[in-house]
Amino acid sequence: MQQTLSQPSPGSLLLLPILYVVWSDTLISDQELTALRRFLKEIDWLSDADRNYLKEKLSPQSPPDREELESWWQTIKGAVQENKTYPDLSSIGMDLLSKDAPEEAHTFPLEKVKSELATLEKQLGIVGKSAALIFKSEHHNISTSYQTQQGFDVGKLTSILDGNRKPLIDELKAFIATKEFDYVQPDDLEKYRNQVLNWCKILADEGYGAIGFPEAYGGKDDMEGYFTVMETLSYRDLSMVIKFGVQFGLWGMSILSLGTKRHHDRYLSSIGKLELPGCFAMTETNHGSNVKGIETTAVYDHEARTFTIHTPHINARKEYIGNAAMHGRMATVFAKLIIGGKDYGVSTFVVPLRDQQGNILPGIDIEDCGRKMGLNGVDNGLISFNQVVIPKENMLDRFSSVDEHGKFQSSIAGDNKRFFTMLGTLVGGRIGIPRSANAASKTGLTIAVRYGDKRRQFGPEGGEEIPILNYRMHQRRLIPLLAKTYACHFALEYVTARFLGRKEEEMQEIEALAAGMKAYVTWHNTATLQECREACGGKGYLSENRIDALKNDTDIYTTFEGDNTVLLQLVAKSRLSAYKEQFENMNIFTIINYVAAKTKTSITEKNPLIIRNTDEQHLLDPDFHLSAFEYRESSILDSAAKRLKRLMDEGMDPFDAVNVSQHHLLTLGEAFIERVVLEKFQEKITSESDPEIKKVLKKLCDLFALYQMEQHKGWYLEQGYMEGVKTKAIRKMVNQLCWEIRKDAVPLVNAFNIPDSCLSAPIAM
Amino acid sequence: MQQTLSQPSPGSLLLLPILYVVWSDTLISDQELTALRRFLKEIDWLSDADRNYLKEKLSPQSPPDREELESWWQTIKGAVQENKTYPDLSSIGMDLLSKDAPEEAHTFPLEKVKSELATLEKQLGIVGKSAALIFKSEHHNISTSYQTQQGFDVGKLTSILDGNRKPLIDELKAFIATKEFDYVQPDDLEKYRNQVLNWCKILADEGYGAIGFPEAYGGKDDMEGYFTVMETLSYRDLSMVIKFGVQFGLWGMSILSLGTKRHHDRYLSSIGKLELPGCFAMTETNHGSNVKGIETTAVYDHEARTFTIHTPHINARKEYIGNAAMHGRMATVFAKLIIGGKDYGVSTFVVPLRDQQGNILPGIDIEDCGRKMGLNGVDNGLISFNQVVIPKENMLDRFSSVDEHGKFQSSIAGDNKRFFTMLGTLVGGRIGIPRSANAASKTGLTIAVRYGDKRRQFGPEGGEEIPILNYRMHQRRLIPLLAKTYACHFALEYVTARFLGRKEEEMQEIEALAAGMKAYVTWHNTATLQECREACGGKGYLSENRIDALKNDTDIYTTFEGDNTVLLQLVAKSRLSAYKEQFENMNIFTIINYVAAKTKTSITEKNPLIIRNTDEQHLLDPDFHLSAFEYRESSILDSAAKRLKRLMDEGMDPFDAVNVSQHHLLTLGEAFIERVVLEKFQEKITSESDPEIKKVLKKLCDLFALYQMEQHKGWYLEQGYMEGVKTKAIRKMVNQLCWEIRKDAVPLVNAFNIPDSCLSAPIAM
Repeated sequence: MQQTLSQPSPGSLLLLPILYVVWSDTLISDQELTALRRFLKEIDWLSDADRNYLKEKLSPQSPPDREELESWWQTIKGAVQENKTYPDLSSIGMDLLSKDAPEEAHTFPLEKVKSELATLEKQLGIVGKSAALIFKSEHHNISTSYQTQQGFDVGKLTSILDGNRKPLIDELKAFIATKEFDYVQPDDLEKYRNQVLNWCKILADEGYGAIGFPEAYGGKDDMEGYFTVMETLSYRDLSMVIKFGVQFGLWGMSILSLGTKRHHDRYLSSIGKLELPGCFAMTETNHGSNVKGIETTAVYDHEARTFTIHTPHINARKEYIGNAAMHGRMATVFAKLIIGGKDYGVSTFVVPLRDQQGNILPGIDIEDCGRKMGLNGVDNGLISFNQVVIPKENMLDRFSSVDEHGKFQSSIAGDNKRFFTMLGTLVGGRIGIPRSANAASKTGLTIAVRYGDKRRQFGPEGGEEIPILNYRMHQRRLIPLLAKTYACHFALEYVTARFLGRKEEEMQEIEALAAGMKAYVTWHNTATLQECREACGGKGYLSENRIDALKNDTDIYTTFEGDNTVLLQLVAKSRLSAYKEQFENMNIFTIINYVAAKTKTSITEKNPLIIRNTDEQHLLDPDFHLSAFEYRESSILDSAAKRLKRLMDEGMDPFDAVNVSQHHLLTLGEAFIERVVLEKFQEKITSESDPEIKKVLKKLCDLFALYQMEQHKGWYLEQGYMEGVKTKAIRKMVNQLCWEIRKDAVPLVNAFNIPDSCLSAPIAM
Repeated sequence: MQQTLSQPSPGSLLLLPILYVVWSDTLISDQELTALRRFLKEIDWLSDADRNYLKEKLSPQSPPDREELESWWQTIKGAVQENKTYPDLSSIGMDLLSKDAPEEAHTFPLEKVKSELATLEKQLGIVGKSAALIFKSEHHNISTSYQTQQGFDVGKLTSILDGNRKPLIDELKAFIATKEFDYVQPDDLEKYRNQVLNWCKILADEGYGAIGFPEAYGGKDDMEGYFTVMETLSYRDLSMVIKFGVQFGLWGMSILSLGTKRHHDRYLSSIGKLELPGCFAMTETNHGSNVKGIETTAVYDHEARTFTIHTPHINARKEYIGNAAMHGRMATVFAKLIIGGKDYGVSTFVVPLRDQQGNILPGIDIEDCGRKMGLNGVDNGLISFNQVVIPKENMLDRFSSVDEHGKFQSSIAGDNKRFFTMLGTLVGGRIGIPRSANAASKTGLTIAVRYGDKRRQFGPEGGEEIPILNYRMHQRRLIPLLAKTYACHFALEYVTARFLGRKEEEMQEIEALAAGMKAYVTWHNTATLQECREACGGKGYLSENRIDALKNDTDIYTTFEGDNTVLLQLVAKSRLSAYKEQFENMNIFTIINYVAAKTKTSITEKNPLIIRNTDEQHLLDPDFHLSAFEYRESSILDSAAKRLKRLMDEGMDPFDAVNVSQHHLLTLGEAFIERVVLEKFQEKITSESDPEIKKVLKKLCDLFALYQMEQHKGWYLEQGYMEGVKTKAIRKMVNQLCWEIRKDAVPLVNAFNIPDSCLSAPIAM
């Protein structure tokens, strides 16, 4: 193996590029061998020396080693003219001959050589034009040279994302970027939970906890600020976010929304300062989604002016209650109000759980939920009440109360209406959670995109390894998710604004928007973090890079504040009844009313010119995108309505009819929200003036729209709204947009402006 | 509110069912009010008493409370005849009148009443036939009454799944079901890791560790047994499985496959007994997928007859190495062999890491990978070598060696071929991992399906809550995954058998099968466990129910033993070269050969009778399923080949051409494996004789086939292989099969026969 390399003879120089290509592929196949040997035998312009050299080099038993291949490579490269286009490998062989053996070159019948070598190349199946490229320096391949550009002002885009809350966001980011908020190991549950409580106290001391409370109670009456804080905190530890949300959002806001001045005066200030940690005890083991079915009772005793709170059986315990296992001293408890043996439906009561020293009070039994998939800094627990007596004034009496004669009173007639109105006050949680989820997606994408830009693996023959974000599949994995995260950001901005400026008559619509966004954004978040984990390979599995915590902490977001599957059904029902219904109502009857009206309306006609239009201009036209989304939404609405009516006309039980149509209803809920998301993204772009930012946002929006259409192409084709040529053109455009946006990907995640100490992941630095 | 209920007057009885339906919906709309009030004014057969009663009951300010609604409900139900079909609500009103006020009944102009009430119902948009059903007892709705059946012999199905390895499986299941293997809290890393080591020692003591080793070294020469053990252990702690795999599979098998008798004699017995814990040090920080690029060097010193192992820079450290951080005493190290300054490519060497007391040896530097998303019972670490000298005999010399003259020797000519042959010996890992993954899917599904069968939430108006597995969406979430898990089981059985009976010339095909199955099954597993988590709601988030550990422990399965994205590309390339290539070769040239040949062949013609055939018999025909899968596979193969050739013909750099086609190639890899999975499932069913088991397996197989087609319907429609009517019929059939299999779902998971103590989840008991 150590012999000096024999030099190629002049004639074999002509075949050297072919020889290199054949051998660089490791194995020589029988087919290739046969073709080459026949060639050597038949060709008359090869000398014996050529023939011997070539025969020797074609032995499968002694293939050229890497040193010899390298020397061939250098020899060939030395003869290649960088600016020349070679149609095949033999043309390179010709140049090689003229350069390395100029004297002998004229002795060959060049025309004949050329034609016979061309035949050989064809037999070997070599696409010469392409293969010839590998001998050029840098290979001139686009996959290697592609890289990040700075196409827009990152700071400006950050300002657009932050909007008018930029001062608060910047201030809070600087605050949580300090050492004090450094991540801790989640190993020791107790330590972690106390650390999280401590973080919340620091935040409360700075006034962030009470920000949404009235000024009279130490707050700033700034509900938008509260959402902004929830979102911004989400760049740090997510247990802290949820503990914060339990204390100030669920516990505090339930006092604010369901109680009256008496309760506000008594509790709000100390809640805002986290001097009075509390719980929101709604869910029971047997009743999560179906809150109406809870079984805890609050029996009124008029003589004593008290309520007795009681848990009738083990599966009626309050479960998953944040702040319960360790820190909560009181709880807002949802229970059925019983007066004189009569059930007045669900009301809420403040029930003390622990004394000032943290000892659990008599009649209260608390069990720790123990370790969870994530959010282990939150002390969730199970609470049961054994005939716990509380004074009358502990009833949160904004919507219902017991008067001095012991009679039930309510400003809202109808148990159901009262119940749903009460639930409606809690809709804020369905805005805070998706905003937190989207922040988690931004963190995950910042880590994965930056890593993809730096991490190199594989590369062209003889060239250097390329950044994995230059791989088309890697782009397809991450860049549509980046586009959707931007889309969700602007849609969440819109839903927040609608919520803040809400009027009574818009409530059903706003509840549907919030619930739909909650489902849409949290599922997107789960998918995004899963993809980020995989896209970062082994590095993504290491806790130091934080994707595991992000994924595990937010995994429950698709369940709490309303299970996504249930929420999308409610959104669909809300759409079917044209927002006429109380949002949470699972009843079916009034859908029928809408169905009767709706089946008369018709939807957008299909345009035969559109269904096969594959012009780039058309494919990138926002009006095309929006009308395709609207068509999907209205068609599914119409077909779901017709289907329900048909099933019920046929005499199917209404509950069965809804069940049979459940998949259809979920698709309807999703199609509705997706249209809103696109619409709001487009509106944002229209209003943007900076041309560079407008351009990159337009690309993201186009990608969002086309990628979703690609996901739904089965449906569009089924409907005849598009033909195969068009869906194929869309796929191609998605690939193209991913490729184009890849250059902007790093600046686009940098625009999220997440502090390094919050990101913390070594692979993102 | 406490007044005694006024009783409906005779005439208002006729309207009572309508009144109930209107009010049971919480809110009365203006539209409904207007219609009802006009009706009251215009109708001449109502008495003043009727009119007053009805007017009172139509006030939005004082809606009937739940007690009054309940009394109406009882009144109406009392009059309803269970066997009678009511076309509308007024027919019920008629029965109500005749029963409760028989004397007055004949005073009403019944024909007129009937027709005028029918008009009112229409105006209110009530689908009377359906609404009328709610007054019947039990509602006769199918969603409530549906339940688990015992349609086949569960034990028999278990035997079919276990096959001829049932004795080993039963024995091992009984062994790991004991207290000794009870799960431990993962809080304390060190304790957990030591516990896992201890479990592996217990298993080694029983002979399970060495089962795949030759008998001479304490084994049973039973490689199939080794896979069976890996799979069965996966019903317990997955850190234990991976630690077991590192010790006996990676470390042990590398000695067996890459070493020679000398190494076997020296190490195998003590490896099998876990007296010599070791590592498999291949991956480096900068080179994971691209193993060929590793930078660790092994420089031969002929004078001293030694190799010097060295890590040139921090990013060339061995990373993620199992057993490294705490327990490993030696490692199989992959390094570039350098003799006399010349690089002979990657070879393997046994390098000591720690002494008998566990002290790290000089020149070795080990860093702990720390906490990970999962598998925290495995002590992964980073290893670097600072000029570590090892004796010549530590080279694992099955494929290459240094002779007594210090010359490189190898039975395999060509560095590349040698390298790929070496990697090929490790293909077993790509069978063990998906088998472990599928076991984890089985555990997750057992927990989620059993919980779905018990957990009740919501139900029809006035009826009891129904098991959530009776919801169509819940079925759609879990049952196709169950079908696919069965499909994967039989395909893994097939690939295992192919591997065990392998011949030299089949190796490329078997490597493609194993790599493809590894990607297909591990992605399926990740998706399954995510769905199980969400389907179990809050309970799924609690660690006690173990879905979190299953998900987090197996999440890395999609990355290690070959990143799934890379593997599917290699599978695609392998298909494009008709298995001619060394499997792991990332090179592109010989694809061209195949392209040249392949573009001449044509694929199955589309049959116009088939593309719109929606007959049930056709939709459930295995031949239709298989031919649809084959069509997809061969079309994508053909189009990918043509596309690559076209791009290269146009002069695109081969590396770029592959990159541009990357998404296409992944789809090709997946389509190939999916066809194999279906084919093997069908073959299994054909050979099954028990009619009940055959029936239920056939349903699962049909669902697997149709569900996958539904996932790919965009593609089938684009190709014109199906029309919209057919894809819609397929969707319907998928829903139908989910509904049918739901009855068998619990027995189907019970057939996995996972010991209760292994499942451990309280919600699965």
